Amino acid sequence: MRVGVLGAGQLGRMLALAGHPLGLGCRFLDHAPDACAGQVAPLTVGEFDAAGVAALAAECDVLTYDWENVPVEALRATAARHPVWPPLAALEVGQDRLTEKDCFRALDITTPTYRAVGSREELADATRAIGFPAVLKTRRLGYDGKGQRLLRDASELDAAWTALAGAPSILEGFVRFERELSLVAVRGRDGGFRAWPLTENRHRAGILHSSIAPYPDPALQARAEDQVRRLMERFGYLGVLAVEYFVSGGTLIANEFAPRVHNSGHWTIEGATTSQFENHLRAICGLPLGATAARGHAAMLNFIGRVPERARVLAVPGAHLHDYGKAPRPGRKVGHATVVGDDRGQVLARLAELEAVLG
Amino acid sequence: MRVGVLGAGQLGRMLALAGHPLGLGCRFLDHAPDACAGQVAPLTVGEFDAAGVAALAAECDVLTYDWENVPVEALRATAARHPVWPPLAALEVGQDRLTEKDCFRALDITTPTYRAVGSREELADATRAIGFPAVLKTRRLGYDGKGQRLLRDASELDAAWTALAGAPSILEGFVRFERELSLVAVRGRDGGFRAWPLTENRHRAGILHSSIAPYPDPALQARAEDQVRRLMERFGYLGVLAVEYFVSGGTLIANEFAPRVHNSGHWTIEGATTSQFENHLRAICGLPLGATAARGHAAMLNFIGRVPERARVLAVPGAHLHDYGKAPRPGRKVGHATVVGDDRGQVLARLAELEAVLG
Repeated sequence: MRVGVLGAGQLGRMLALAGHPLGLGCRFLDHAPDACAGQVAPLTVGEFDAAGVAALAAECDVLTYDWENVPVEALRATAARHPVWPPLAALEVGQDRLTEKDCFRALDITTPTYRAVGSREELADATRAIGFPAVLKTRRLGYDGKGQRLLRDASELDAAWTALAGAPSILEGFVRFERELSLVAVRGRDGGFRAWPLTENRHRAGILHSSIAPYPDPALQARAEDQVRRLMERFGYLGVLAVEYFVSGGTLIANEFAPRVHNSGHWTIEGATTSQFENHLRAICGLPLGATAARGHAAMLNFIGRVPERARVLAVPGAHLHDYGKAPRPGRKVGHATVVGDDRGQVLARLAELEAVLG
Repeated sequence: MRVGVLGAGQLGRMLALAGHPLGLGCRFLDHAPDACAGQVAPLTVGEFDAAGVAALAAECDVLTYDWENVPVEALRATAARHPVWPPLAALEVGQDRLTEKDCFRALDITTPTYRAVGSREELADATRAIGFPAVLKTRRLGYDGKGQRLLRDASELDAAWTALAGAPSILEGFVRFERELSLVAVRGRDGGFRAWPLTENRHRAGILHSSIAPYPDPALQARAEDQVRRLMERFGYLGVLAVEYFVSGGTLIANEFAPRVHNSGHWTIEGATTSQFENHLRAICGLPLGATAARGHAAMLNFIGRVPERARVLAVPGAHLHDYGKAPRPGRKVGHATVVGDDRGQVLARLAELEAVLG
C-alpha cells in the first residue's frame, strides 16, 4: 500500500520511517525542495493545491497530512472520491480556534472561557466579559506560540491588536495551570479506539521543550480518554489525534486538538509497544491497531535550533537520538532525544543529563 | 556522517532504517538493481570490485558490509587508506570454515571436531578420524544450510563428495545438541564491549525459523561473552559480531561466527534498549554504544518465501512486522515479525499465534 502525505516535515519523516518495515511506502508533497521527509521517501515538490493533491492521490491508496494547516479546499475534491484520513471535517474545525473551542463546548469538554474578536471594539468588549489576564490568539495559523499575545491589563490592548494585524481572533481567559498534559489517541477501522498514557509537557517560549510519560493519574486518564473518544466519534475519525490540556485545580481544561501525530507523542517510538506513527498508518490503512501501553517510563527532549553533538547525546544511558536532517535555524524543531527506563526517577535523571548536553 | 554498505539486502535495509534517526545516512553498493535496501537509501548498482569499493568509499566516511562473502580482495586497497569495519581480518577468517575453526581453537573456544578435506581420499581419512555421523561442508560460500551434506555411514561418501563438486571442504563431527544459541555482541571505540542476552534459535531446513530471547542462563551467558570478547579483541574489532553455538551436555560448542549484524539479533529492534543495527552503526562511526539489555521477552519468526497477510500478522498482540520489500521466492528471507511482552510464557503463546498465521 502507498500512503500519500501532504507536508514532508519531521512528522512525515517519522511516519515514513514507521511505514518502511510495515511495507507501507509513504510519498510526500511539499513546497520546500529540502523538506526533510524527502531524505527517507519520495518527495514531489509542489503547491498544496487541488492539482497537486489529485496527482499525489493518483499514485497512492490513501492520503494523510503531517501539517494541520494544509488548505482544506485543496483537499475537498479529492476527498470526495479518494480516502483522506483524518477526515476533512476534523482538519477544518481544528484550523480555526473558534470552531475548535465551539466543538469542545458542544461535547461538554471544558475549555478556557473564550470570545470571538473581529474588531478593536469587540476586543474591548471581550476583555470586559473575560477579565484579565487574558490571551488574544489569531483564529488561524497559530502554532508553537505564534499569533498569541498575553494581555495583563487594558493598556496592552492596542499593542496586541496591532501585533496581530487585526486578524480574526479569539480572546481566552488565562488559565493558571498546575501542569500541561496531552492525550494522544488513535481510532481505527470498526471504531477501535486506543489511547497512549497521558503525557506531561513543558513548554519554553511557546514551544514544547520536554515530555514525560506516563503521567500516572488513572482518573484523569479515564476522563481524557472519554473526551477524546467522543471527539473522534463526532468526526468518524481514523488516525491519530492529540488533545492538549491544562490541569487547573485538578480539572482538565482542553486547550486545542491536533488532527495528526503530535510532538508530545514522540516518546511512543521507544516508550510504548506501538508508536503513534505506526498506529496512525495502521489506522488510515484499515489495519489492526497495535497496543498503546507504555514500556516503562520515557522522557523526550526537543532540540530547537540545532542538534547537539551526536556523541554527547548518545553517551546518555538509554538515550535515543532523532535527528530530522533539517538545517539549523533559531526556533526550528530540528530533532529530539528520548530516554527510556524502568524507573521514573532514573528517567528524570537522564532527562536532566540530556538537558545538560543542550547547555 | 555517511556510511557505505557493501550489499543491500535486508540487513543493510535495517541498518539504513536505524541510521536515519541518528543522522547517519547509508549508501549501498550491490549488483542487484532491486536490492531491497535501495528502497530506503541511495543504491549504486555495480560489482563488488576494487573500483566499485573505491567509488563508494569516496563518498562515505566509513565502509561496512551486510554480507560476509563480499570479496576481501576488492576491499583491501581501500581498507589500507579508509576506515572499513568490521576489520578485513575477521571477514577473511570467517569466510573459510577451516580458518574459522582454527581461530576458535587458537582461542580455546570449543568447536566440533573437524578436519580439512581436499580430496576423496582425505574425506575417507577424515571419516576414520572423526567417525559417523559427520557433516561435510564446503570451506567457502556456505550459508543457510547450503554447501552441507550429512554423512551417516561410509556408503554416503561418494554421493556427498560429488554433490559438493569436490570443493575444498571440512568434515565436522556431528553434534547431538540440546539446543542452538547465539550471542550477538558489539565492540566499540576504546574497546567497549557489550553483548545482548543469549538467544535460542530454531532452524528448519537449515534456515533460521525463530529466535527467542533472552535465554536465561547466567553461566552460559558469562562463558559466551568471555569467548566473543576474546574473539573480537583478537581482530581489534569494531561493530557487531554473532557467534552461533550448539549446546551439548550443557557445554557451548561454537559452530560459526558472522562478522556482521545477524538474523538471530533481529529481535533487538523492539526487544532491547538498543538494537544490533543501531549499535553496529554507533560502533563503526566511533560513537558511544547503547545499552544492550533486553526489554522484557521477545520472539522473532522469519518469513521465508512470502510475507503473510499484513493484517493477520498485525492482529497478533504485540507483533511488529518487518517486510523487507523483496519479491516472493521459495526459500528466500522476505521478512520477519517480532512479538514482545513482559512474560516469557505470553511471548511464546504469541509466537505460536504468529506461526499459525504462517499456516
